[in-house]
Amino acid sequence: MKTRVGIIGATGYTGVELLRFLMRHPEVEVTALTSQKYAGIGIERVFPSLTDQFQLKCEDLSFEQISQKTDFIFTAVPHKTAMETVPQFYKDGKRVVDLSADFRFQDPTVYERWYQKHTCIELLSESVYGLPELHREKIQKAKIVGNPGCYPTGALIGLIPLVKNKMISLDNIVIDAKSGVSGAGRDVVLESLFCEVNEGVKAYKIFEHRHTPEIEQELSQLAQKKVAVTFVPHLIPMDRGILTTLYAHLTLKIKAEEVLKIFKDYYSKEPFVRIYPKSKIPNTKDVRGSNYCDIGVIVNESDSRAVIVTAIDNLVKGASGQAIQNMNILLGYPETMGLDVLPLSP
Amino acid sequence: MKTRVGIIGATGYTGVELLRFLMRHPEVEVTALTSQKYAGIGIERVFPSLTDQFQLKCEDLSFEQISQKTDFIFTAVPHKTAMETVPQFYKDGKRVVDLSADFRFQDPTVYERWYQKHTCIELLSESVYGLPELHREKIQKAKIVGNPGCYPTGALIGLIPLVKNKMISLDNIVIDAKSGVSGAGRDVVLESLFCEVNEGVKAYKIFEHRHTPEIEQELSQLAQKKVAVTFVPHLIPMDRGILTTLYAHLTLKIKAEEVLKIFKDYYSKEPFVRIYPKSKIPNTKDVRGSNYCDIGVIVNESDSRAVIVTAIDNLVKGASGQAIQNMNILLGYPETMGLDVLPLSP
Amino acid sequence: MKTRVGIIGATGYTGVELLRFLMRHPEVEVTALTSQKYAGIGIERVFPSLTDQFQLKCEDLSFEQISQKTDFIFTAVPHKTAMETVPQFYKDGKRVVDLSADFRFQDPTVYERWYQKHTCIELLSESVYGLPELHREKIQKAKIVGNPGCYPTGALIGLIPLVKNKMISLDNIVIDAKSGVSGAGRDVVLESLFCEVNEGVKAYKIFEHRHTPEIEQELSQLAQKKVAVTFVPHLIPMDRGILTTLYAHLTLKIKAEEVLKIFKDYYSKEPFVRIYPKSKIPNTKDVRGSNYCDIGVIVNESDSRAVIVTAIDNLVKGASGQAIQNMNILLGYPETMGLDVLPLSP
Amino acid sequence: MKTRVGIIGATGYTGVELLRFLMRHPEVEVTALTSQKYAGIGIERVFPSLTDQFQLKCEDLSFEQISQKTDFIFTAVPHKTAMETVPQFYKDGKRVVDLSADFRFQDPTVYERWYQKHTCIELLSESVYGLPELHREKIQKAKIVGNPGCYPTGALIGLIPLVKNKMISLDNIVIDAKSGVSGAGRDVVLESLFCEVNEGVKAYKIFEHRHTPEIEQELSQLAQKKVAVTFVPHLIPMDRGILTTLYAHLTLKIKAEEVLKIFKDYYSKEPFVRIYPKSKIPNTKDVRGSNYCDIGVIVNESDSRAVIVTAIDNLVKGASGQAIQNMNILLGYPETMGLDVLPLSP
Repeated sequence: MKTRVGIIGATGYTGVELLRFLMRHPEVEVTALTSQKYAGIGIERVFPSLTDQFQLKCEDLSFEQISQKTDFIFTAVPHKTAMETVPQFYKDGKRVVDLSADFRFQDPTVYERWYQKHTCIELLSESVYGLPELHREKIQKAKIVGNPGCYPTGALIGLIPLVKNKMISLDNIVIDAKSGVSGAGRDVVLESLFCEVNEGVKAYKIFEHRHTPEIEQELSQLAQKKVAVTFVPHLIPMDRGILTTLYAHLTLKIKAEEVLKIFKDYYSKEPFVRIYPKSKIPNTKDVRGSNYCDIGVIVNESDSRAVIVTAIDNLVKGASGQAIQNMNILLGYPETMGLDVLPLSP
Repeated sequence: MKTRVGIIGATGYTGVELLRFLMRHPEVEVTALTSQKYAGIGIERVFPSLTDQFQLKCEDLSFEQISQKTDFIFTAVPHKTAMETVPQFYKDGKRVVDLSADFRFQDPTVYERWYQKHTCIELLSESVYGLPELHREKIQKAKIVGNPGCYPTGALIGLIPLVKNKMISLDNIVIDAKSGVSGAGRDVVLESLFCEVNEGVKAYKIFEHRHTPEIEQELSQLAQKKVAVTFVPHLIPMDRGILTTLYAHLTLKIKAEEVLKIFKDYYSKEPFVRIYPKSKIPNTKDVRGSNYCDIGVIVNESDSRAVIVTAIDNLVKGASGQAIQNMNILLGYPETMGLDVLPLSP
Repeated sequence: MKTRVGIIGATGYTGVELLRFLMRHPEVEVTALTSQKYAGIGIERVFPSLTDQFQLKCEDLSFEQISQKTDFIFTAVPHKTAMETVPQFYKDGKRVVDLSADFRFQDPTVYERWYQKHTCIELLSESVYGLPELHREKIQKAKIVGNPGCYPTGALIGLIPLVKNKMISLDNIVIDAKSGVSGAGRDVVLESLFCEVNEGVKAYKIFEHRHTPEIEQELSQLAQKKVAVTFVPHLIPMDRGILTTLYAHLTLKIKAEEVLKIFKDYYSKEPFVRIYPKSKIPNTKDVRGSNYCDIGVIVNESDSRAVIVTAIDNLVKGASGQAIQNMNILLGYPETMGLDVLPLSP
Repeated sequence: MKTRVGIIGATGYTGVELLRFLMRHPEVEVTALTSQKYAGIGIERVFPSLTDQFQLKCEDLSFEQISQKTDFIFTAVPHKTAMETVPQFYKDGKRVVDLSADFRFQDPTVYERWYQKHTCIELLSESVYGLPELHREKIQKAKIVGNPGCYPTGALIGLIPLVKNKMISLDNIVIDAKSGVSGAGRDVVLESLFCEVNEGVKAYKIFEHRHTPEIEQELSQLAQKKVAVTFVPHLIPMDRGILTTLYAHLTLKIKAEEVLKIFKDYYSKEPFVRIYPKSKIPNTKDVRGSNYCDIGVIVNESDSRAVIVTAIDNLVKGASGQAIQNMNILLGYPETMGLDVLPLSP
């Protein structure tokens, strides 16, 4: 029998992306889609791309109703709403992948400094930061997975092998990230209008973006010392994709091939990480629509500077794809199940 | 045992798109990729999106070598080259889906008027125009399938039910089509440069586009009388998609609902045609990456004008997806096998 | 002394575009910018492109205050608001160019059928439809100019010489228009979000778009008989530009050169109309940022079908540029003053 | 009498952009456009945006012919060709603005390390690096101006005030630049095709881009010590614009306001540099089509990290606009003459 899955907050871009994959996942069945705004409306009215796929309507359901209809939950609601929602399902014994920031931080004071008061601190110990490349074993046993932010996913996968192996200086890491517009969600705001975004590039929230502490939490834990990073996100006129350009200084004088070997070894069993050969640099276009994270490494051997470039689809590996990867781990399915699609190119 | 498939001319956009689907098709295995330009080069070097998928290299193979390695052939080469290539495989008993124009025309004089001298007229009688919605039974028995052009696919699917049912005037059909840039292929020409295309729209080849006779051949056959259409293609700054706006006069005074019912009845068993409800109009974005053709119908009841709008992905239903659909029909596989992916939205 | 100009509703895309030209116009000075939403805020905060240009703030002014500060008015407010606003300035003897639909129709019943009740019918006789290529003499003497819609501008300039010279059949004109997104204005609505628009094309408001009666009014007047057109607008993923593809049947059997000559003769003195040579078709990219309307004409001589293609920048010739052209006519300045910029290419 | 200007290599994107401004410049007249490829063809055939502007054809002229027809020369040819071309005009006493890299370097060994053998070393002492914000006085007296590269323009304007005032550490400057596609020129290469670029972002030539030594030359001279920078360029799916994100460490503990004041003081008389208020960050969209360089500065006061963001239009301030600015300086015209246009927004 298929696992019955509910999506709480189904009508944003991460919602439709969850559906794109889940509706073709052989072991699950989507049985509840909640939305207050679109209650009573067929999902194909919200997303015509889903026309003729199934009969499910968006519903404004109570927690009890959802619990009855489902075995597993994705919460794709804004932070704050998430920490009010997730505990209800936890109580009913459901396992949850939460796509908000509410269950990503181990230390509630960090969350509270960057977000707001955390009202569900007791569940943080039941939660795992859902980056499978880093925490696969913990995820398997978790009740709640705090699905990583899009920027941290692209940044961390490019830094983990180097930090883990103590190969880079930790006090001057620069993370310059370029994101497509879907990262801003489907909220109807002036800044996301086509004519405000198209044919322009901008940086935003310099030193202030809330994904910074997430990156720092994971790097600090890996390094077993406090790590601070300089992180600047940028908005690019395209739908999907994050290119992350990571600037670091190698602590040893080693060649590009050796750095690449460290990446290859570290990720040798990862189904969704692809290491590019020497001197090749990834393009977000080559991961679009897929759960892959592509990595290129360039080393300036004369002075040990390294630039690592990672490319992900922010809605897939940076959000819904990774959420389903986490679901597969939680439920014991093969990790690539339902996610094994190739990038859309061109 | 899987069917061994070869792709002749694998390094264009239709080539990579064939690979995107075929590499996930459960019953086939790609065993030959030919390219003169990229011979000896791994396909992931040509298309990094295919990194870590398989080991196949592009090869510059003789017909004999290809025949030995394969059971089934896609020819994704320019017209003229196709009519030199396809007969070789035909002689060896292979079934072929040809993506060029060379096997689309029943009457060689039409081909010769719009293209050039046809050097393989004897095989035209073995060939079927590969629009499954029109010629499924013939395709099943064909040796060679002339895979339809992208524009004719979008235009014909929107006109067939009306012409078949003699519901529109045949002497003033206007077909205004808007295509993404991948329709121009991967040829390195000035007109396809980003800065020549982006932030602009243009019409081209007015009254001269070679897809015109294809549309007219099929409509004339359906109507059992000669049909001429006014067809104007346009280039739109996007990667994929063709929106076709069809202008016609209904011969009867009927309501939109009735026209929609005719479409729904006609396409009721088609796995890749989706009819929109009354007053809904499709967007190419909602079929992107998929094999669907979405259709909307608007009728001005007071004077019986009808506008039919169809949306396809030019590289999928307009090329490689339809080619695989034809392969599935030829080989007796379920028609949706390997093609059952949802559109990428947004 | 410079003419003091006020812009009522300065913070939309037509507002910033008026400012782009007016701030470089040698004979005018912008002395009032009204906005309720941005009252008290410097215009460079609303549009950083205007940084360091002048000190004017947006203000929420009364009619009296505006009248005191200005000699000439542009109203760039939504319809309905316009017909409440314009009469106030009319009473004070100001001449006004109104960018809404409220003063475009001679027959209020047409307006009321497509829009709403007209509350200022008495001023319609003082108003002129502001297409200089058609009504230059009347505009010179007008008190109020109803600045044409963007779609009617592109459609009419491509049809006028043919209708005027009775060269096309009037009962089957098809107008297929493709517009950039700025045509939808700066309203914050879901449909205008980048990820809803980018990488897609759609038709909308088929048989229902409010620019239809505008086109029909002018063509009917020219033809001295009632003309109905089939008009379908489309949304294209680009900022600016309207390409209008016009389908018509010539009533005489004439060659392309002769049709082109009719266009050249008709527009020989027009500073902003450019006729392309035979077989050349315009691209919106080549008029971007300028007040030009480019025209290409293709004739299928064997059956007298004609396709006329026009390209304008919807924010310039389709809105603010034409408004300034009208202002120049009203105030007796050279018609190209302040508008004589070349298109931005690429 | 107007200055007669020739453009050598008129048919690339910098060529058409020179023409866009020069054709509206009140003191100059373009009297020669050379192109081998398009010889004999009217410029409006190459760039339809220039339709109906003037009668000049592209010509394949000898140096003598060009010298006779012109008083002033822009060379918009590839490097290497430039150093063969410029000396010819120098001999004839013409002043030249060269848009290639051939006259940007004072030290020929630097040029030869990054480019090739320099065959015109004797003229380097007559050449000035044409960044007016840095070398205005020298430019006034120069015979040859080496017009800066697009990336160096955006990087240097953001760094000069800080390096000049010894306010940042010089050993860990990171320059992450994002460019529109027109920066790659109009060469017909696979990498510049629409479908290769659109909907993707990539880094390229990491540690290898030839603009690196240009940046280092100017910063080293300013700092009076050798400065090395980490420079990574990226390609963004848009026509125009470079956003440069500069990462630096302040050597003093000072506030954002003070850093901004240094920028404002340094650039107080610059007509084309605009400093944004505290916490505002520029977008390339707000300089598009104009010669402005917009600057935003963000300081993390707790640890003295600074991020400076600059925005230019790569074809204007990054190429042709700056070239005309240099011409104005060389010829004693007001520096903004012919360049005083506002950005195109949206």
